[in-house]
Amino acid sequence: MADIKKYRIGNPIPTDSVVVDMEIMTGKIPFLTINENDKTLSMKLEKTDRVYGLGETVRGMNKRGWTYTSNNSDDPVHTEDKRSLYASQNFILITSVYSSCSLGIYVDTPGKVTFDIGYTKLDELKISFEDLDADLYFIEGKSPLETVSAFRHMIGRSYIPPRWAFGFGQSRWGYKNESDIRRVADEYAKADIPIDMIYMDIDYMERFKDFTVDEEAFPEFPAFVSEMRENGIHLIPIIDAGVKIEEGYDVYEEGVKGDYFCKKENGEKLVAAVWPGQVHFPDFLKDSAREWFGNKYKVLMDQGIDGFWNDMNEPAIFYTEDHLAEVFEKLDDYKGKNLDIWSFFKFKDLVGSIANNDEDYRRFYHEYKGQKIRHDKVHNLYGYNMTKAAGEAFERLCPNKRILMFSRSSYIGMHRYGGVWCGDNQSWWSHLLLNIQQMPALSMCGFLYSGADIGGFGADTTEDLLLRWTAFGIFTPLFRNHSALGTREQEMYQFPSCDIFKNLVELRYALIPYLYSEFMKAVLEEKMLFKPLGFEYLDERSAEVEDQLLLGDSLMLAPVYKQNASGRMVYLPEDMKMVRFRAWNDYDEEVLTQGDHYVKAGLDEVLVFIRKGKVLPLADIERSRNANNNSNVSAAYSGLRSGDVSVTDLKYICYEAAAEDYRLYTDDGISRI
Amino acid sequence: MADIKKYRIGNPIPTDSVVVDMEIMTGKIPFLTINENDKTLSMKLEKTDRVYGLGETVRGMNKRGWTYTSNNSDDPVHTEDKRSLYASQNFILITSVYSSCSLGIYVDTPGKVTFDIGYTKLDELKISFEDLDADLYFIEGKSPLETVSAFRHMIGRSYIPPRWAFGFGQSRWGYKNESDIRRVADEYAKADIPIDMIYMDIDYMERFKDFTVDEEAFPEFPAFVSEMRENGIHLIPIIDAGVKIEEGYDVYEEGVKGDYFCKKENGEKLVAAVWPGQVHFPDFLKDSAREWFGNKYKVLMDQGIDGFWNDMNEPAIFYTEDHLAEVFEKLDDYKGKNLDIWSFFKFKDLVGSIANNDEDYRRFYHEYKGQKIRHDKVHNLYGYNMTKAAGEAFERLCPNKRILMFSRSSYIGMHRYGGVWCGDNQSWWSHLLLNIQQMPALSMCGFLYSGADIGGFGADTTEDLLLRWTAFGIFTPLFRNHSALGTREQEMYQFPSCDIFKNLVELRYALIPYLYSEFMKAVLEEKMLFKPLGFEYLDERSAEVEDQLLLGDSLMLAPVYKQNASGRMVYLPEDMKMVRFRAWNDYDEEVLTQGDHYVKAGLDEVLVFIRKGKVLPLADIERSRNANNNSNVSAAYSGLRSGDVSVTDLKYICYEAAAEDYRLYTDDGISRI
Repeated sequence: MADIKKYRIGNPIPTDSVVVDMEIMTGKIPFLTINENDKTLSMKLEKTDRVYGLGETVRGMNKRGWTYTSNNSDDPVHTEDKRSLYASQNFILITSVYSSCSLGIYVDTPGKVTFDIGYTKLDELKISFEDLDADLYFIEGKSPLETVSAFRHMIGRSYIPPRWAFGFGQSRWGYKNESDIRRVADEYAKADIPIDMIYMDIDYMERFKDFTVDEEAFPEFPAFVSEMRENGIHLIPIIDAGVKIEEGYDVYEEGVKGDYFCKKENGEKLVAAVWPGQVHFPDFLKDSAREWFGNKYKVLMDQGIDGFWNDMNEPAIFYTEDHLAEVFEKLDDYKGKNLDIWSFFKFKDLVGSIANNDEDYRRFYHEYKGQKIRHDKVHNLYGYNMTKAAGEAFERLCPNKRILMFSRSSYIGMHRYGGVWCGDNQSWWSHLLLNIQQMPALSMCGFLYSGADIGGFGADTTEDLLLRWTAFGIFTPLFRNHSALGTREQEMYQFPSCDIFKNLVELRYALIPYLYSEFMKAVLEEKMLFKPLGFEYLDERSAEVEDQLLLGDSLMLAPVYKQNASGRMVYLPEDMKMVRFRAWNDYDEEVLTQGDHYVKAGLDEVLVFIRKGKVLPLADIERSRNANNNSNVSAAYSGLRSGDVSVTDLKYICYEAAAEDYRLYTDDGISRI
Repeated sequence: MADIKKYRIGNPIPTDSVVVDMEIMTGKIPFLTINENDKTLSMKLEKTDRVYGLGETVRGMNKRGWTYTSNNSDDPVHTEDKRSLYASQNFILITSVYSSCSLGIYVDTPGKVTFDIGYTKLDELKISFEDLDADLYFIEGKSPLETVSAFRHMIGRSYIPPRWAFGFGQSRWGYKNESDIRRVADEYAKADIPIDMIYMDIDYMERFKDFTVDEEAFPEFPAFVSEMRENGIHLIPIIDAGVKIEEGYDVYEEGVKGDYFCKKENGEKLVAAVWPGQVHFPDFLKDSAREWFGNKYKVLMDQGIDGFWNDMNEPAIFYTEDHLAEVFEKLDDYKGKNLDIWSFFKFKDLVGSIANNDEDYRRFYHEYKGQKIRHDKVHNLYGYNMTKAAGEAFERLCPNKRILMFSRSSYIGMHRYGGVWCGDNQSWWSHLLLNIQQMPALSMCGFLYSGADIGGFGADTTEDLLLRWTAFGIFTPLFRNHSALGTREQEMYQFPSCDIFKNLVELRYALIPYLYSEFMKAVLEEKMLFKPLGFEYLDERSAEVEDQLLLGDSLMLAPVYKQNASGRMVYLPEDMKMVRFRAWNDYDEEVLTQGDHYVKAGLDEVLVFIRKGKVLPLADIERSRNANNNSNVSAAYSGLRSGDVSVTDLKYICYEAAAEDYRLYTDDGISRI
């Protein structure tokens, strides 16, 4: 068992991320050298130390060689020089093939904190604070997995979605009305591609107002939800953080009446703007506001909705009323003048830096645990508490039912209330690799129901990118194709390779018993679902593999993530059985020996590697479909649904193991499905 | 010998990129299907076809799977979804391991042209025009190299720089004055790292005025140039395209008097703004303006300068006077209003799209070959003709001397007058890979003296990125470390690994005999300097290798371009001798067999692979230094210089070959050095 010690520096604002009570140690903190003057903690890194963690961040699995700032940010351009994305997951793990200790450090503080991991100096880790207030947890395990499990135990059980959320979901910013959504369902039905969810982006709302539905676009929403459910499809609407300021809009009026909105120092409510135009931000950190906002989800649940995604909850700010007024005032200074070039840049920058402006995050306050706290001090808790509002409400409103919930912004602790998607990525091959590299980091901090927008959200996808990304995405719990308004349409039926997509998605459904079982095991036994190779295999080569990963106990994946490649090199830390799937019921098996192999992998193929002594259970989806078809899906929509897939009547692909060696985790014993 | 055929569609504006007179064929154009209505040419791509070319563009060596638009653009964010960078190099090569013909297509047209290479449809190449006017050249060779050589013969001999330009150069936007530059020279001297050039970015000018030197910062510029030359260092100033509008500034006044500036339709001179504030653009397409501007370089040459880099010559436009006035007028519409979110975005976009605005490129005209032509129709020739102005002037002004010249913007044809650097890249690992992938494409169209900003221009570099990038950069003819104002300082002496950098740069100098010889061979025999593996080795695996390349006749390179990697997989198409350099005089040799190998490569090591039957000549730089030291460099600056390196007194590393098998190309017989 790993050894955990808790220390406190300064006077940290609690985050409720840790659920286990622990004594606070006194005396000098171990491992790290504290420098009160520059508000830093530092330690030397050995040349062979690898540093994992930080959840949803840019760059590789091994985070060495860059600086990461926990400061939840709505930045859709995830290039490798970015320091902050949407999430703050301040857990790092330092390990080495030459060390018998894997050290986990959890820096629990809700404000901005920066991890310089061998950036300024190749051999130094330096953690910098705006305020030197944090709870520090040091977890010493004999292996990376032992350390991670101990950490996961500390932070409590991960969120479990309904089983149908393991199906495939299609999304796009731009499905405007019933007929747009019906068309998606129809086209997937026509292509006979299994699908369980269609996501509704901001378009469905009446002028982007939370908990409303545009009545022109969806004249009879409950009937439409029910029609879709009969076709086996869950509609999953988005919920944004900001509440539109509009007289007569009930959510706004309740918020004002109940005093649920964030206020400025002078007591006036902050006026920010996001999609609905001017909004107030609910104070999710305040218990009463959280309860109120959580209850609002019922408005949609009463119309048949059983899943949501929470967005814009960093919170994103397009502008604040106060700052915009300042900008317009300053703009007058530039008009009609012969601008020298620096004045011109200042003018451009004035307008260019209106959105998500640092200054705006210091303009408003929260009531948190009885204290008035300026937003920037607890910034990274905002999305967490929005999702907590929902999760607490679901528990109250429907204790016997699981509701799908995932969020863009997060902090550790939120993993108990929902999953995450990896935000507004791009249709870049490098973001397919990033998706592969982020999954283990998310597993480390308990965000098990997660995945990236397959095919990429921003920019134009290509058919081959979408094929390769889907071939990886079939393994991620959240399996969603999503894209932005104005980009190339990327529903699978848009492409000539539609048949290949069908095979890929069907394979996903055949894998659901394994995926769900390994997911439940990871939840219930506090394990990682996705692991870097170096967490299980302690050789030097495995330690450096950044483009393969382990999924559950049985599988290694080695996705193809380069354009125009008809194969790739794969490193096998031990002998494994390679299964080359062309379809769920069309595959070859081949045992490959430990070492490096070049393997071909066509656009229509998926390779999985079964570890020695392990088993891959597969559903016979044809039989499942025949057995369950009528019960789940109306005749016109004959496509397979997650609920059709039998998790008991399985076939098994084994490598030096027997079917009986695989223990299937079906659920946690709670009746909720 | 490859077969070349020339066809003409429409009435193309000449570009002077082809120097060989060719008969224009009549009748239907081969290979491509013309569609007059949508102004496209298209052809089917076989599944195994690879498409190379397009020079300096994003993505891999094989360009399949994306759309590229030739439209010279000042865009410093070279993410993989970008369609246009700084250059237009409209030559593509279609080849396959299963075909006995490698087809080259050169689309010679100075306006916007788009290459959809299997993007819209995986199996279709479609070339789209704004105006269906182009000279089309079809080159059928038996191999990629034969086709490329035939193309290179068509477009004339590549620019040859002075030999000292094969040394190392340090640059940074932000060296403000003599003492900043002296410090760079001093620090390199102290570190004993060889250096031949220090680049001067826009800071050296008097308020960014071309052909001026800030007298406060450089009170005695000729003396300073001469001081640096005595220390063995060439100062290389930047020249921008725009000429500041300022009464009394001679270049401006001459330009007005001589009628050398671009005009709007109404005959008024266009007022644009770049670094100096408001400028006029010289009409480089007009013979008299080109002659005039070319002669201006003499102003700096008379002060001892013998090298330049031409920048901002797409041309970049921060704003035009006319457009900015329109913007300010529209801004008033937004002031004081409660903006709905779409109005807010329009407001932001209004300001955000001021720079390099498409509309601005339609506001002005050129006098080109006696015709008044709107800029956008000949946009891609602008940078080319700026550099041609310089090249023609150098030929007139100093016919017996070579002048260093490279440019940001280019079009095929410009390769006869200068090299290119790959523009404002970023400190991204992916841009190290991009550098590797762009080099062969640049070789294809004759841009032999080229390279990228080592360490990355924008964003913050890391020590290990700079080490790995330098370990590749020592092989590129243009070998320059350059970075942007505001980014981390990245001169080699800034880092603890200074000794490793010294070893790397010294190895570069020891390689100069080989690099210069292979460079001259590529120029004189119209060969590629950098080649994809698949151009020499016709197996399927070689065809897909995108992260190794051949340099000259003897070497294969396999750079490490991933962070935290202590080695990499290398594919050997045949047996090769791997040389592991720790320093120019400290290395091991090992023969590796054909196939895949994992090779270790520390941050302090450089691997090169010598092909079978080939030879790598190496200078003994210690002996060179001792023999030449006093003649070239003053005592305080004892560092090695390119001119010190003996190209005759060499040692040879051979693999199944003898030293005599290597033929050294020293020069083209012209006395100019």
